[in-house]
Amino acid sequence: MMTVDDVAMPDGARLVRLQRKDDARGSLVVGELTGLIPFKCRRIFMIYDVPAGASRGGHAHRACHQLLIAASGRVHVHVDGGTSCCDVLLEGPETGLYLPPMTWCVQSHYSSDCTLLVLASHPYDAGDYIHDHAEFLAMKGVRE
Amino acid sequence: MMTVDDVAMPDGARLVRLQRKDDARGSLVVGELTGLIPFKCRRIFMIYDVPAGASRGGHAHRACHQLLIAASGRVHVHVDGGTSCCDVLLEGPETGLYLPPMTWCVQSHYSSDCTLLVLASHPYDAGDYIHDHAEFLAMKGVRE
Repeated sequence: MMTVDDVAMPDGARLVRLQRKDDARGSLVVGELTGLIPFKCRRIFMIYDVPAGASRGGHAHRACHQLLIAASGRVHVHVDGGTSCCDVLLEGPETGLYLPPMTWCVQSHYSSDCTLLVLASHPYDAGDYIHDHAEFLAMKGVRE
Repeated sequence: MMTVDDVAMPDGARLVRLQRKDDARGSLVVGELTGLIPFKCRRIFMIYDVPAGASRGGHAHRACHQLLIAASGRVHVHVDGGTSCCDVLLEGPETGLYLPPMTWCVQSHYSSDCTLLVLASHPYDAGDYIHDHAEFLAMKGVRE
């Protein structure tokens, strides 16, 4: 399991740090999207109340870019670029995980208090999903 | 205190519902931003670990639009349009509170597990803030 300080990631995926400001009124993190991510945010979604043992994701997107942030709690994220992969623990709002298109991703070990926020570059499109890992590898030019 | 089903809000503020999908893997809410909010999201920030009794906000924005979502936990939001105001309890990711420019807003009673997500239309600009409530009312054409 990589920590958020290990920044070597497969195929253009990367961790991004949001600027954090603490004072007597609590904590605030902020991200100016233009400098943070190479896409415009056109859709958001949040995943929460995930039962212990459940996993989510298990697909890649053909065109959609995403930024994942554990707005609360923590979650394990498996990032698979085809030729290499890594596992990342996302914990707390100050760290985002940028996933370019054509990255296979599986989330698991959601803490019971986890809300995973995802910023996405495209409206929902069922045709943008690749659900078959062998097909994903073939599209990446990787022989199994 | 209004509930999220009371939709009468001051001066263009409104509650928006994100589409929720539950299954054995937990809950997901999704918002296609084009249909949800009348601005492009250029900045995000998250507020969390707010001590009991602390409040945040207490200002208006001249030009910046915002969407507030309690990604986890709950928070009270006071919305003041100048000529009318209301109080809203935000609880859970499926409800957003859209605030147009020139809306005075104060958040309080953050639950200890609350992460308040804010989508904003503009990059940070200190000059966009109005910190004086009397000045805000004067700009809205309201006599105290």
